[in-house]
Amino acid sequence: MTMQQTDPRHLSIAYIGGGSRGWAWRLMTDLALEASLAGTVKLYDIDREAAGVNETIGNRLSGRPDVPGKWRYQAVNSLAEALSGADFVVISILPGTFREMRSDVHAPEACGIYQSVGDTTGPGGLIRALRTIPMYVTIAAAIRAHAPDAWVINYTNPMSICTRILYEIFPGVKAFGCCHEVFHTQLLLAQALKECGGVAGAPREAIKINVLGINHFTWLDRASYQTIDLFPLYRQFVEKYFETGYEEEAGRWERDFFASGQRVKFDLFRRYGLIAAAGDRHLAEFLPPWYLKDPETVREWKFSLTPVDYRIDNAKELIAKSRRLASGAEELPLDQTGEEGVRQMKALLGLGDLITNVNLPNRGQLSGVPLGAVVETNALFSRDRVQPVVAGQLPPEIQSLIIRHVYNQEATLRAGLTRDKELAFRAFMNDPLVTVGPADGRKLFDRMLANTAEYLPGWEL
Amino acid sequence: MTMQQTDPRHLSIAYIGGGSRGWAWRLMTDLALEASLAGTVKLYDIDREAAGVNETIGNRLSGRPDVPGKWRYQAVNSLAEALSGADFVVISILPGTFREMRSDVHAPEACGIYQSVGDTTGPGGLIRALRTIPMYVTIAAAIRAHAPDAWVINYTNPMSICTRILYEIFPGVKAFGCCHEVFHTQLLLAQALKECGGVAGAPREAIKINVLGINHFTWLDRASYQTIDLFPLYRQFVEKYFETGYEEEAGRWERDFFASGQRVKFDLFRRYGLIAAAGDRHLAEFLPPWYLKDPETVREWKFSLTPVDYRIDNAKELIAKSRRLASGAEELPLDQTGEEGVRQMKALLGLGDLITNVNLPNRGQLSGVPLGAVVETNALFSRDRVQPVVAGQLPPEIQSLIIRHVYNQEATLRAGLTRDKELAFRAFMNDPLVTVGPADGRKLFDRMLANTAEYLPGWEL
Amino acid sequence: MTMQQTDPRHLSIAYIGGGSRGWAWRLMTDLALEASLAGTVKLYDIDREAAGVNETIGNRLSGRPDVPGKWRYQAVNSLAEALSGADFVVISILPGTFREMRSDVHAPEACGIYQSVGDTTGPGGLIRALRTIPMYVTIAAAIRAHAPDAWVINYTNPMSICTRILYEIFPGVKAFGCCHEVFHTQLLLAQALKECGGVAGAPREAIKINVLGINHFTWLDRASYQTIDLFPLYRQFVEKYFETGYEEEAGRWERDFFASGQRVKFDLFRRYGLIAAAGDRHLAEFLPPWYLKDPETVREWKFSLTPVDYRIDNAKELIAKSRRLASGAEELPLDQTGEEGVRQMKALLGLGDLITNVNLPNRGQLSGVPLGAVVETNALFSRDRVQPVVAGQLPPEIQSLIIRHVYNQEATLRAGLTRDKELAFRAFMNDPLVTVGPADGRKLFDRMLANTAEYLPGWEL
Amino acid sequence: MTMQQTDPRHLSIAYIGGGSRGWAWRLMTDLALEASLAGTVKLYDIDREAAGVNETIGNRLSGRPDVPGKWRYQAVNSLAEALSGADFVVISILPGTFREMRSDVHAPEACGIYQSVGDTTGPGGLIRALRTIPMYVTIAAAIRAHAPDAWVINYTNPMSICTRILYEIFPGVKAFGCCHEVFHTQLLLAQALKECGGVAGAPREAIKINVLGINHFTWLDRASYQTIDLFPLYRQFVEKYFETGYEEEAGRWERDFFASGQRVKFDLFRRYGLIAAAGDRHLAEFLPPWYLKDPETVREWKFSLTPVDYRIDNAKELIAKSRRLASGAEELPLDQTGEEGVRQMKALLGLGDLITNVNLPNRGQLSGVPLGAVVETNALFSRDRVQPVVAGQLPPEIQSLIIRHVYNQEATLRAGLTRDKELAFRAFMNDPLVTVGPADGRKLFDRMLANTAEYLPGWEL
Ligand SMILES: [Mg+2]
Ligand SMILES: [Mg+2]
Ligand SMILES: [Mg+2]
Ligand SMILES: [Mg+2]
Repeated sequence: MTMQQTDPRHLSIAYIGGGSRGWAWRLMTDLALEASLAGTVKLYDIDREAAGVNETIGNRLSGRPDVPGKWRYQAVNSLAEALSGADFVVISILPGTFREMRSDVHAPEACGIYQSVGDTTGPGGLIRALRTIPMYVTIAAAIRAHAPDAWVINYTNPMSICTRILYEIFPGVKAFGCCHEVFHTQLLLAQALKECGGVAGAPREAIKINVLGINHFTWLDRASYQTIDLFPLYRQFVEKYFETGYEEEAGRWERDFFASGQRVKFDLFRRYGLIAAAGDRHLAEFLPPWYLKDPETVREWKFSLTPVDYRIDNAKELIAKSRRLASGAEELPLDQTGEEGVRQMKALLGLGDLITNVNLPNRGQLSGVPLGAVVETNALFSRDRVQPVVAGQLPPEIQSLIIRHVYNQEATLRAGLTRDKELAFRAFMNDPLVTVGPADGRKLFDRMLANTAEYLPGWEL
Repeated sequence: MTMQQTDPRHLSIAYIGGGSRGWAWRLMTDLALEASLAGTVKLYDIDREAAGVNETIGNRLSGRPDVPGKWRYQAVNSLAEALSGADFVVISILPGTFREMRSDVHAPEACGIYQSVGDTTGPGGLIRALRTIPMYVTIAAAIRAHAPDAWVINYTNPMSICTRILYEIFPGVKAFGCCHEVFHTQLLLAQALKECGGVAGAPREAIKINVLGINHFTWLDRASYQTIDLFPLYRQFVEKYFETGYEEEAGRWERDFFASGQRVKFDLFRRYGLIAAAGDRHLAEFLPPWYLKDPETVREWKFSLTPVDYRIDNAKELIAKSRRLASGAEELPLDQTGEEGVRQMKALLGLGDLITNVNLPNRGQLSGVPLGAVVETNALFSRDRVQPVVAGQLPPEIQSLIIRHVYNQEATLRAGLTRDKELAFRAFMNDPLVTVGPADGRKLFDRMLANTAEYLPGWEL
Repeated sequence: MTMQQTDPRHLSIAYIGGGSRGWAWRLMTDLALEASLAGTVKLYDIDREAAGVNETIGNRLSGRPDVPGKWRYQAVNSLAEALSGADFVVISILPGTFREMRSDVHAPEACGIYQSVGDTTGPGGLIRALRTIPMYVTIAAAIRAHAPDAWVINYTNPMSICTRILYEIFPGVKAFGCCHEVFHTQLLLAQALKECGGVAGAPREAIKINVLGINHFTWLDRASYQTIDLFPLYRQFVEKYFETGYEEEAGRWERDFFASGQRVKFDLFRRYGLIAAAGDRHLAEFLPPWYLKDPETVREWKFSLTPVDYRIDNAKELIAKSRRLASGAEELPLDQTGEEGVRQMKALLGLGDLITNVNLPNRGQLSGVPLGAVVETNALFSRDRVQPVVAGQLPPEIQSLIIRHVYNQEATLRAGLTRDKELAFRAFMNDPLVTVGPADGRKLFDRMLANTAEYLPGWEL
Repeated sequence: MTMQQTDPRHLSIAYIGGGSRGWAWRLMTDLALEASLAGTVKLYDIDREAAGVNETIGNRLSGRPDVPGKWRYQAVNSLAEALSGADFVVISILPGTFREMRSDVHAPEACGIYQSVGDTTGPGGLIRALRTIPMYVTIAAAIRAHAPDAWVINYTNPMSICTRILYEIFPGVKAFGCCHEVFHTQLLLAQALKECGGVAGAPREAIKINVLGINHFTWLDRASYQTIDLFPLYRQFVEKYFETGYEEEAGRWERDFFASGQRVKFDLFRRYGLIAAAGDRHLAEFLPPWYLKDPETVREWKFSLTPVDYRIDNAKELIAKSRRLASGAEELPLDQTGEEGVRQMKALLGLGDLITNVNLPNRGQLSGVPLGAVVETNALFSRDRVQPVVAGQLPPEIQSLIIRHVYNQEATLRAGLTRDKELAFRAFMNDPLVTVGPADGRKLFDRMLANTAEYLPGWEL
C-alpha cells in the first residue's frame, strides 16, 4: 500500500473528533503557521454542532491576513464522508461523557484507590478502554473501507490500546500514536542543562534522547545535548531539587491540576538510574500505590488528583470560548503549540525527515516486549514511511514493571473485542493500583462496569 | 559434550548437600527399590558429620536383604572429590541456617507482610536467593571443572534461580530442576476423577497434563485420563468443594503446615479457567496479598503460614531420627517416595523414555517468556538428553502475573552476581507481596539483608 | 477447540483421496489389525469409481474372520459428506495425472536437470506444488466448514507446502503431516547396530533419535538404542560400506527404483557429521546437483531416477490388483505396514502416549527456522494434542542448505495463493537443481507451467 | 560503556592499516576539509614504512594553508600504541598479499568458476575470510584492552565477517562497518530522477532509501526524493537502458574494471521488483553463476572480472604516487571523497544527527535474519550511539537468496575461529558459485587453502 504522489498544497485531512475544543484548535493553529501545506480539513464529530462551530473557527482563522497556512474547514455528517479521499486522518475523541469519566476516576476512591488521571491504566483506564474499544473498531473498519492509504495519527487515550485496535482490525493501516509527555521531559532536561550545565536556550528538539517503554510509562536511557551527556547534569539537578521539587513557576502544582514538582520523576531516577519520561500524574498510576496511597501521599510528592468536577467546569469555559472564537470575539493566538502532528505530516509528504517518539506496534524496536504490542520509541519519519529506531531493552527490574501492563493491555483488548466480562475482571485485578482483594474487587468492577454500560453494546452485564 | 556409554551397574552419583535428612533419605529409598542400577553415592556436605551419618544409613540400607538396589555410600571431604567421575550430580542444600530463614519468613510480618513459605519469592525468597547465589556459583564452577559431562539434578529452592545460575556460570551444564508440586496436582486430579468421574485408582503418571509456567507458579491448560478430558470433571469438583475446601483427610490443614484445603487453587480455577499446579502455600506467594493479607485471611482460605519455629523443632526430631536410622534402631520404610530422580536417571541412561515436568532454560518451549529464563514444562527424557516439549503460551492475563516474576528473578540474579545492593532493592520493591512504600520497604530490606550478611561475601552492606 | 470425548469404538474417518490404491490399503490393513478401534471410513475421491472399489475392498476385509478391527467403508460423493462428523481426516491425493507428472519429472532433462522423484522440490516439485495449492485451499476450507475439530493427517507431497496451506487457510486446523522416510533411517540404524554393535533384532521404535529439518531433508543429531550411542557405530558402518553401498538385498537398487545403496546418505554423514534421514532419492534433490549431475553420476551413487513410465505401468498393475481385491481373487495380507496413522489416532484418543516425528508449523521446536514454517521434528501425541519436542538447531552449514528451501517454499506458497507467475518463476530460479541461467530457466518454466495449466484455475499464463 | 565528554578539537584517531594508499588518503582528505574537528591520527601498519610515508603525507596536508582541518599524523610501532587513548579507530587492512589474492580470485578459474572481485563471497571471499579472521581476533582483543570506549569503523572486506568478529571477541565493542556501494546506487537513482523525472542536481543524501540485506548484497524497497516516489521512475529508467546498459560516460566499463553498464542491477530489478544496491561486480558473486558463467557472459552483462595483475600494476602506481605526495611533487586534491567516516564521527561526537546505512549485528532491524548476524540497514548516528532503523523484511524469494549466505558466513566464522578445515570445506561447497561436485570441490579447496597457509597460524592443513 503506497501513497500516491501527494500534492502538499491540496491535502485532505479527516479529523475524527472534529468538535474537540483542545486538540482541534491546536491542529488549526499549527496548520495556520505552516506555509508549505494547504487543503481541506473535514471535521467529523458525534456532536455535529461542535464540529460546525469548529468549522467556523477554522475558516475564520484561515481568513486572517497574518495566517500563512490557508485551509478550508468543513463539518461533515459521517465518518465515510470525512474519510473519503483523506491523505491524513487525525483521531482525538472523548470516549463517553464526564458522567462515565467521573465513575472511572472517583468510584475506586471508596475502596481507597486514588488515581491522578484515570484515562490510561488503573481501574479507570481499564474501564475507559473497554468503552473505547467498540468505537475504535468502528473507526478502524471505516478507515479500511474509505481511506486505506491515509496516514492515521491517534491522540486518544488509552493510547496503546487505541493504536493497537487500529492494527488489529485493519492490519494494513498506516497509523501511529502521538503524545507530548516525552516532549515535556525534554523541556525538563533543558532546564537541567541550564541550571547544572550553564547552557541556556537549548531548544527541545536539540535534546537528543533514546526512548523506551509504553505510552505514559516511558523511559530514557540516553540523553544528550550536542557534545554533552545530560545524565550527570540531570543527576545533579535531581539531587538539588529532590526535596523541594522543581518548578519553573514556584507552587504552581498547588493551583494547576496538570502541574507537578516532578518529585515522582526524581524519585524514580534516584531509585532506577533511568529517566522516567512522562508527567508524574501518569507515571504514578503504573506503579503500586507508592505515590498514590492516599491524598496526603500525593501532596507530599507534589502532584494532584485531577477531579472530574474540574474537567466539567473547564469544559464549560471551553464551550464559552468556542463561541467567542466562532464569533470573532476572541482570536486563536498564533503560537506553536509544541505538538508534532504537522511536522509529521510534512515528513510523510517527503518535505524533510524527522525523528521523534511515537507509539507503534513492536516490530523489533523494543527487545523484551512481544512483537505486535504497541510501544513508544523514536521513529524515523520519511516520505510515506514511519520506521521505528531500534531502542534496545530496558533493564530487567524496569521490564518487570512494564511488561505486566503490556500483557494486561492485551487481556483488556481481548476482553473488549470479545465482550468477555470475566476476562475484563481478570485484567482489572492485575492492575497494580487495585489493592483490594478479589471479593471487594469484584464489587468495584461490577459497579464501574455498570456505570459505563451504555457504551458497551452487546455485552452481557 | 556427550556422555560416554555409561554402565547402569557402575554409576557414580555426587550428592551435594549429602547430609540432608529429607531429600537424601528419599533418594536412598528410591535407589534401594530399583534393581537395575548400582554404584556409589558420594555424600558431600558442609556439615561433614551429617554426611557421615547418612553414609552409615545408606550403607545399612544397602545391606538389608529386602533391598534390591545395592549402593555404596561414601561421605567425602570436598566438592571436587564428590564430583570427580560423577555420572549424576544431585544438589539439595539448605542455604544458610534457621536463623537466616527466620528473618526471611518472619521479619516482613512487622510490616504486615505474611509469607506461607518464604523460600521462592516474596521478600524472603529474594533474600534467600541472594544468599544462595554465591553458593551456586561455587557449585557450578566445580561441576565445570570436575564433572562437565554429568547430569545435574537440582532440588534446592529458589528453584528457578538456582537452575539459572548453573547455566549462567557453565553454559554447557546438563542440568534440570525437579519439584513435586505438579505431581501433587496430578494426585488431586485423580481425586476429581474418582469423585466426579467415577473412576478410581488412576495412577498419577496416567494423569496426562500440559504444564506451563515457572516453578511453584505453574499452570495446566490440558489434563486428561485415557479418553477422558479432566477439565469438566475438575470444574464439578471445584464447585462441589470450593466453600468447604477439599482434603482426603478432613481438617488436616489445621494440624499440618504443609496441608491445605486447596481453596486457593479452586479460587484461581474459578477466576482464570486454568488449573494452578502447585501447593496453595506456594501459589499464594506469587500474587498480590489476595490470600495472604493477614493470618485471618490465610485461615479463611484454609492453608497455613509455616513458622520457622516449627521447622526448628522438626529438624531436632530429624536429627534424633537420623541417629536411630544410623544405629539401626529404626529402619527406612521401603515405599516409593513419589520423587522422580531415579526414574529420570534411568531414562538418561537409555533404559526407557520418560515424559515429566522439569525446570529448564527456555529454548522455545514456553512462548512469551524470554529465551534463557528458567521455565517449568514437560520434557522428554531419553538417553543422554532432556528435551522440553513445546507447551504453548499462557493467556495474557496469566502472562501478566508470571512475567513480572521472570524479569524480577533476572534482576535478583544480576544483583546477586554483581553484589549490587541497589538493584536487589529494586527487585525487592517489585515483589507483589511487598505492599509497603519505598521508604518503609527500604528499612525492611536493609534489616533483612543485614540478617543474612554472613552469607553475602564481598557485598558492601 | 477441543475434541469432545470420543468413543474409540464409534469413530468416523474421512479419507480424502479414498480411491488411492496404496495409502488407502495401508490404512485399511492397519485398522484391520487394531482391535481397540471401530467405526466408519468415508472414502471420497474425484475418481468416484475407485472410491467405490475401495469401499468393497474395505468391507470385504472387515468381513474376514481373522480381522480384529471391524470398520464400515462407505464411498461418498462429496467432501462435505466425507467430512461431516469426522473425528479424523486422512488426506492422500495425487495432484493431477501422470501426464502432468511426466512434465514435472522429465521436462527439465532437456536442460540437463535430472530429478530422482520430482514431487517435493526441484523444478518438478515446485510445479507440482502450484498444482496442489488450489486443491488444498478447497480441502482446508471444507475442513473448516464441516470438521473443524477433527484431527487431520496429511500424506500428500509436497508435504511441507500441503501442511502449510491447511494452517494458512484455517489457522485453527489440527493437522500434521506424516512421512515414513525417517522410519527407514531408523531401520538402517538398526542394521548398523547389528553389523557394528552386534545387537540384532532391535525394533524400529527402540531406535531413539532427535529429528531436525524439513520433510525429505531431515537430519538426526542424536541416535541411541537403550544405553548405546549409535553415532560411533554408524560411523563404522558408513566407513565399511561407503564404497560398495549397503543393501540388505544386494543389487536391489538396480532393479527397484525406490531402493538405493545409501551412498548419498553415507557421503553426507562423512561430510557433515550428522545423519541425513530420508531416502537418497529425496536427499539428492535438495542439494546442488552433486549427486544428480547426470544419469552416470546417479548410477555411481547407486540410486535411480524414477521414470514416470514406470509409475504408469505400476498403476495399471495396481488397478488390476484392486479388481482382484474387490472380487476376493486376492486378499490383503495382514502385516503391519510400518505406517503410524493408526498409532497416532490411538494416542490422540487417549489410548497411550506416542512420540514420533511429524511435520508441523514451527512453534519453537526448531530454532533458526521462522515460526509458522512447516518443519519435521519429534512430537508428543497425547489425548487431543500434538506437541512438538524442542529439537534444537542445525549447525550453520546445514542451516544454509535447508533455510533457502524454507523461504523458497514460502515464496512458492504465496505464488500459488496469489496466482503470481513472476513470483513462481523467482522461486523456480532459486532452486539448487535449476542450474541454467535466467533465460533458459524462463523457457523451461513457461513450458512446465503450460503443461500443468489445466490445474491452475484463474492463472494468467 | 559510555564515551566521556569528548572535545572535538582534541581527538585521537587510531588508523589500523595506516599505510594504506587508498582509504588512508580518503580519510586524510575528508579530515582536511572539516574545520570543526582536530587532533591526532596514529597510523599503525605491519608495513611500518608505508605508515611513515603516510605520516609525511598527512602532516604535509595539514600544513597547507587551504586546509581548514588541522591534524597531526604519527606513525606508531604497535597496535597498543595506536589504540591507547583513541576516541575513534579506523580499520582498513589488506589481509595477506597479492600472492594470496591471486589464488583467491584466479585459482577457481581452472574449474570454470569466475569471480569478479573475490573478496566478499565465492570461493575467494571465503578463503580471504579465513585468512582475515586471526588478524581481526588480534585487533578485537587489542581494542578491548586499549580502547574499549572508542568507536570503531571497519572498512575491510569481507565486511560482514570482519564486523562480526569484533563483536564475537569483544561483545562490548562499539563498532560498525562502512561501505560505499549503497551510495553509488543513490547516485544511480539521482540519474534516473534526472533522466526520467526531469529533476537534475539532487544530491546523494537527498535520495531517501530503505536499505535491507547484507553487505554487497543489499536491497532497497523504498526510494524517494522529496515528494517523489523513485520506484516508477527507476522502472522507466531500467526499461530504457536495460539492453544497452547505462553509463554516465559511455563505454567506460570496457576500460575500467570497477565500472559497469548496471545491467545486472537492471536485470535483478526486472526479475525481483526491488532495487539491488551494490555494484554489479559484487551482486553477481552472491548468486548462482547467472552473470558469471564465463567471461563471455560477464561481457554480455557489461561488467568485468578484475584481474589481480591489474591490482598489482595499480599498486605500483600508488607507491610511486605516495612518494610524490610525500615529497610534495604532487598534492592531494581537496574534494569530498564521498565517504562518510568523518560525518559519522561528527554525529557520534554530538555535532548533529545522521542517518546512513551501516553494517551492524542484527538487534531487530532486519526481520527474518538471526539476531547477532551482521546486516546492512540504515542507522541513526547520534552522540555516542548508533541505532539501527527497523528496516522490515525482504520478501521470501530474496530471503532465500540471502539467508544461505548469512548462515554460511556463520559457518565460515566458526571454521576460522576453531581452525576447523572440514567445516570450512562445508561452507566452501555451500557457496552458489562453487558449481563443481564434492570431489573436484575438495581439490580446489585444498589448493586454495594451501596457497594461503602462511596466514592460517595453528591450522592443521
Ligand atoms: Mg498522552
Ligand atoms: Mg518445590
Ligand atoms: Mg514422504
Ligand atoms: Mg564495500
